[in-house]
Amino acid sequence: MESIPHISTLPPPAIARELPIAGPAIARPTADLIERLQGVSSATASAVLHKMGVRQTFIEGPLPRKPGAKVVGPAVTLQFMPQREDIASGLGQEHVEKVSALWAVFETVQPGDILVVQAWGDRYTGCMGEMLITYFKGRGGAGIVVDGCIRDWPHVEPIGVPLWTCGFTPNYASQATLFPWAYNVPIACSRVLVVPGDIIIADDDGAVMVPINLAPAVVAATVEHEEWEVFSRIKLAEGGALTTYYPLNEEGQREYEEWRRQQGM
Amino acid sequence: MESIPHISTLPPPAIARELPIAGPAIARPTADLIERLQGVSSATASAVLHKMGVRQTFIEGPLPRKPGAKVVGPAVTLQFMPQREDIASGLGQEHVEKVSALWAVFETVQPGDILVVQAWGDRYTGCMGEMLITYFKGRGGAGIVVDGCIRDWPHVEPIGVPLWTCGFTPNYASQATLFPWAYNVPIACSRVLVVPGDIIIADDDGAVMVPINLAPAVVAATVEHEEWEVFSRIKLAEGGALTTYYPLNEEGQREYEEWRRQQGM
Amino acid sequence: MESIPHISTLPPPAIARELPIAGPAIARPTADLIERLQGVSSATASAVLHKMGVRQTFIEGPLPRKPGAKVVGPAVTLQFMPQREDIASGLGQEHVEKVSALWAVFETVQPGDILVVQAWGDRYTGCMGEMLITYFKGRGGAGIVVDGCIRDWPHVEPIGVPLWTCGFTPNYASQATLFPWAYNVPIACSRVLVVPGDIIIADDDGAVMVPINLAPAVVAATVEHEEWEVFSRIKLAEGGALTTYYPLNEEGQREYEEWRRQQGM
Amino acid sequence: MESIPHISTLPPPAIARELPIAGPAIARPTADLIERLQGVSSATASAVLHKMGVRQTFIEGPLPRKPGAKVVGPAVTLQFMPQREDIASGLGQEHVEKVSALWAVFETVQPGDILVVQAWGDRYTGCMGEMLITYFKGRGGAGIVVDGCIRDWPHVEPIGVPLWTCGFTPNYASQATLFPWAYNVPIACSRVLVVPGDIIIADDDGAVMVPINLAPAVVAATVEHEEWEVFSRIKLAEGGALTTYYPLNEEGQREYEEWRRQQGM
Amino acid sequence: MESIPHISTLPPPAIARELPIAGPAIARPTADLIERLQGVSSATASAVLHKMGVRQTFIEGPLPRKPGAKVVGPAVTLQFMPQREDIASGLGQEHVEKVSALWAVFETVQPGDILVVQAWGDRYTGCMGEMLITYFKGRGGAGIVVDGCIRDWPHVEPIGVPLWTCGFTPNYASQATLFPWAYNVPIACSRVLVVPGDIIIADDDGAVMVPINLAPAVVAATVEHEEWEVFSRIKLAEGGALTTYYPLNEEGQREYEEWRRQQGM
Amino acid sequence: MESIPHISTLPPPAIARELPIAGPAIARPTADLIERLQGVSSATASAVLHKMGVRQTFIEGPLPRKPGAKVVGPAVTLQFMPQREDIASGLGQEHVEKVSALWAVFETVQPGDILVVQAWGDRYTGCMGEMLITYFKGRGGAGIVVDGCIRDWPHVEPIGVPLWTCGFTPNYASQATLFPWAYNVPIACSRVLVVPGDIIIADDDGAVMVPINLAPAVVAATVEHEEWEVFSRIKLAEGGALTTYYPLNEEGQREYEEWRRQQGM
Repeated sequence: MESIPHISTLPPPAIARELPIAGPAIARPTADLIERLQGVSSATASAVLHKMGVRQTFIEGPLPRKPGAKVVGPAVTLQFMPQREDIASGLGQEHVEKVSALWAVFETVQPGDILVVQAWGDRYTGCMGEMLITYFKGRGGAGIVVDGCIRDWPHVEPIGVPLWTCGFTPNYASQATLFPWAYNVPIACSRVLVVPGDIIIADDDGAVMVPINLAPAVVAATVEHEEWEVFSRIKLAEGGALTTYYPLNEEGQREYEEWRRQQGM
Repeated sequence: MESIPHISTLPPPAIARELPIAGPAIARPTADLIERLQGVSSATASAVLHKMGVRQTFIEGPLPRKPGAKVVGPAVTLQFMPQREDIASGLGQEHVEKVSALWAVFETVQPGDILVVQAWGDRYTGCMGEMLITYFKGRGGAGIVVDGCIRDWPHVEPIGVPLWTCGFTPNYASQATLFPWAYNVPIACSRVLVVPGDIIIADDDGAVMVPINLAPAVVAATVEHEEWEVFSRIKLAEGGALTTYYPLNEEGQREYEEWRRQQGM
Repeated sequence: MESIPHISTLPPPAIARELPIAGPAIARPTADLIERLQGVSSATASAVLHKMGVRQTFIEGPLPRKPGAKVVGPAVTLQFMPQREDIASGLGQEHVEKVSALWAVFETVQPGDILVVQAWGDRYTGCMGEMLITYFKGRGGAGIVVDGCIRDWPHVEPIGVPLWTCGFTPNYASQATLFPWAYNVPIACSRVLVVPGDIIIADDDGAVMVPINLAPAVVAATVEHEEWEVFSRIKLAEGGALTTYYPLNEEGQREYEEWRRQQGM
Repeated sequence: MESIPHISTLPPPAIARELPIAGPAIARPTADLIERLQGVSSATASAVLHKMGVRQTFIEGPLPRKPGAKVVGPAVTLQFMPQREDIASGLGQEHVEKVSALWAVFETVQPGDILVVQAWGDRYTGCMGEMLITYFKGRGGAGIVVDGCIRDWPHVEPIGVPLWTCGFTPNYASQATLFPWAYNVPIACSRVLVVPGDIIIADDDGAVMVPINLAPAVVAATVEHEEWEVFSRIKLAEGGALTTYYPLNEEGQREYEEWRRQQGM
Repeated sequence: MESIPHISTLPPPAIARELPIAGPAIARPTADLIERLQGVSSATASAVLHKMGVRQTFIEGPLPRKPGAKVVGPAVTLQFMPQREDIASGLGQEHVEKVSALWAVFETVQPGDILVVQAWGDRYTGCMGEMLITYFKGRGGAGIVVDGCIRDWPHVEPIGVPLWTCGFTPNYASQATLFPWAYNVPIACSRVLVVPGDIIIADDDGAVMVPINLAPAVVAATVEHEEWEVFSRIKLAEGGALTTYYPLNEEGQREYEEWRRQQGM
Repeated sequence: MESIPHISTLPPPAIARELPIAGPAIARPTADLIERLQGVSSATASAVLHKMGVRQTFIEGPLPRKPGAKVVGPAVTLQFMPQREDIASGLGQEHVEKVSALWAVFETVQPGDILVVQAWGDRYTGCMGEMLITYFKGRGGAGIVVDGCIRDWPHVEPIGVPLWTCGFTPNYASQATLFPWAYNVPIACSRVLVVPGDIIIADDDGAVMVPINLAPAVVAATVEHEEWEVFSRIKLAEGGALTTYYPLNEEGQREYEEWRRQQGM
């Protein structure tokens, strides 16, 4: 079987010339919207969206790697796909990456953006490392959510960018079974559909996707919700009954409305 | 198919009127027993129980979330079951929860109790959050073990209750595929059968169930076991041979007995 | 550590004397209801229940082991729990089983019943074998659904009872990590809550739970649904356009109503 | 929290108006190429492609559901994405499906095509059922490969279309956590990147993707490969030594070349 | 980084020269022992061994691929290990395999042997195919158990060798992440330790390992066990009570002993 | 079935007398080689080895348990296998362990060694605990990598030995389904083949195996690689373009060579 040719001697497919796949530039939300969402926890966002009818908003898998960090911002997206050596390979994979979606997406990052990466939960692909995350910080990126791994953690942690990842690996971005395919296209991050420009709220509970159209309604609902919880917390701390104060029963509701009036709300 | 009725317009099943399922109140162990079990690590308890013939005592899955914490106490139990909207739903799920096993179990907590929750390892159900855990602390609960997740971690961690959980999620208790079904009934927490009133010992190795009937025998065996390990540790630190001192061979045993006499034991 | 006692020398816990846990006898549905549900496929039942608002009805995991079989009947339930040697063991486990929920549930089977077993997807527990399934057939049982395994398949297959199981194992019912705990209590079979007396519809797509309260509405909705699908199938087979006939658009709906009138429906 | 609006009362996002995402029409291979690939097993294709340098060609997960079937043809693709009720829902999901990628892709099927579906291995989504597969057969489709499930198996099996699926479910296409998003775009089917127009070879070993550019080289390599295996099989059957004949050592190679001459090859 | 050398230009490690690792030739059991074990099902063997104190004998994962087949014989073993290109690679992997454990083990097969393969449950490695299994049949091998996959199923099935495998794949033996490392050494097949020369009993319930030292005791226990089950089956078929006849209570035992006397046993 | 004998009354198999399986003593690398590898991160080692052609070097699963730790050293290996009570059991398992591979391997540890353990990812086996790790530290061991769990974490953490493990468990080494079988033999740690004497580099990204034969070439390649990355990092920090400096394009390469000359490299 000596006559079997190697792919490096054969013409690459048409799709290879179209890479990386690029979506349109995203419209960023107003600073005011982001400001008001800063007060919304991922837990509240997830709960409110569920009550609105949107069920799959929690990006399960990526864990917070900077304890206590909380970020809110618009999603720029990066999509890995399964490795295809006849498409992605060339003289050297590291140089192929350079014209890949991986490099391209970093050039689009603006201050406050959150990079959200579809990496299939893969434990053998290090989607990015010290150099790119250094560059990300320099551009003002707010945080990164990957349903997969990154590499260079000993050097990345000191950079201080808030990260949510499934773990770490020494491997680089196209060393195993995936490679960077597209950016600023709708992606599936864990089991959540993220459209570029949707809002990400991430904290120690995890990362939640807020559809940009629904963000104002989330803010409105949250304000009301968080108010009565403040009241409940006070009452429970004073020894108030669970049945009265969490959630508010009729009696609790009356007391809460009275309390609001007293607070001048 | 416009004629398909929604469950909210149909009568709920009989079982819905019996919820939450409640077991009998538990008998708490004596303070003396708990006191003596404080000196037993989860590792020793697991080993001794295995030698007694009880093999499945380690609650695999929940990890310690307060490093260094160690708790010992009787189990009060909470059981989630798969969501059934025709049984559990109503005008608002949060209000349904209020008459649910979730609320009910917290009303039974006494100082020193450990809440043990069957949550099927689910990553999308936040079994409880800040408000209930605040209330749990107020009642003097010692710790919580969940083979699933909790929510509100940014606000729960400062409360300081020792927790063993599989992780965190922003979702609330009946947002995904489970809902709270029963309390103070025998449960399967991970692959361990926990009967209300059994003892839980949890530390950085994980949580172990000690059948209440066997707890005195565990204490007795442990005292003996821990003594020779103290002796072994000293010897190994002095450069003693592994074959002599861990575990004790005949020679080591003689030396140990001599050492015990010298210690006045 | 020679002094560690074996559990066989210690008193068993109180719960051991209460085993097996038994629920109340179930009320069977009318023959007419079962008759009318015979025409409903698991696929249609699942779809209709979803439109009613009940989402978790498909018992994922158990596969059909008698190709082409279709059964409809009320659920009698059996629940395995994690093994606890201090509770379940005795002189011989096979004799313990005899007073267990495993034996007890078979004594309650009536003609047309479907035995539904919570076995945690375990691959090492053979929930039942040739002898009990022979007995089940003799009592007129209609079928068995197990989210786990059975044993003795070489001898069970010829008996001809329709089975849905996750697989087969040579192990017996309490040989590994589970043992039979309760019967005729609500169970979680895979991720579906099955209350004794609920209807099971199982065929080559799998097994679906139909809440007994909703069964009449499922029948009603199905009749309507299946009628227009008959019409669609005819039209598509004649080369009709997908957009017109599946599902029916306005034009298709008009034709369908005309067709119904012609059929004298 | 009565004031939280439902998504049905809010404007849908822009992306909803662009659905379904559609790729360009594919160019079909020549009948001659398909004809010559009919003689190539999935095992040979996978081996030859690996020797060329393409490693991920086996679509692991989908099993053959029509034993003995073998299909070769160009891939038309369908991509499911995670459910987003604010995007996909409307008055009725079944009608939404009608303008979805699911309906659209079937309209593009030509005789000999193989439909390849990205369904994330999901066990709760029935990607298609009796009606669509009836239509697929009518259009002359050759086979279907799904890294997920289909529904209506009792009615689909008699249709006779060769299928490779992960299993079956009674649920319909957007009943659980996915919905149909795009068609004729590059997809990840299991861990294989399939570009529309690539060749699929599927048989009882499973389904293999052959990049269209490499298909002629696969044919060439296979002819040579299959010839010496025919010779080896004869020799092994006559009791020839494994070391001589599989694979051919120098001596075996000489005999093989002589044999070829004798056969007039 | 052009200066990074490829492993093909570097000296291979010492271990490469020792491959394949070979264990000593096995001693086969007497024909009489095998004959008597033919009457023992995998289910009975597993149960008896468990009562003797050996718990892990069921090789979970490999499913029967020739329905109804039953084999009993001594284990010859083959062990795959993770791929290491610096050890296993050469000019062509297929030729490397030729001096590998894969080829070597087949040369040791004798009539009645069962080949047991440690393949880590891998879905991408086809441990063997048509040619080697043809050769295996020619040598009189009784059956093959693989905790992984084989390839060439369209051509292997007609050969008729009883197989227990986790599945099928088009990939060959060292195409993915494993390669053949050792033979006739103790292996872990699924979670069972198999020593060469141990007995394998495999049927439609799966494959069970019987330690060769315990095989005579298994035969003895089985004879007794199967006798009372024959009696029980007769009684249950006649309508006898489960509590009396399965297992035998005192009354049943008396009747059974009487029955044995009548049978002249 | 009272006549079934227990294994403790039967002769153990021949293999039991050969335990533990022991490989030959390893040759340690020179201090100079280790010294120079100290500057190589696991990420760089993994990348360089991949470019050399060795793909499976990252030991996925074990996580760093001492944040910030970095170790480099030769591998001594320990292999667990599935429990076989007829082989491993005796009067007391803890005493059996004493003549087991677990005890034996610790006696071979020399300063700078890294203990690498094949434990099948098992969550119920605590491969070692406080006593043995105390002893390991006393012998100068550099670190431990286990694709499984250890026990006694509350007491092990203060000892300060760098550990990479999948987790913690209270169970001891032969309490569940595994037992210590062999040492200083080639093992599979996660999916990596580790030959005794290979180099392990472990840090916060995880543990990587470097074949001892390739270690000098890894050092050489790394020196070159790390130099240009230093230059790139400086340039990116100054605001240099990603396309010029990471990786270096022609222009970047020229600047880098100039920079090297200026640095006197």
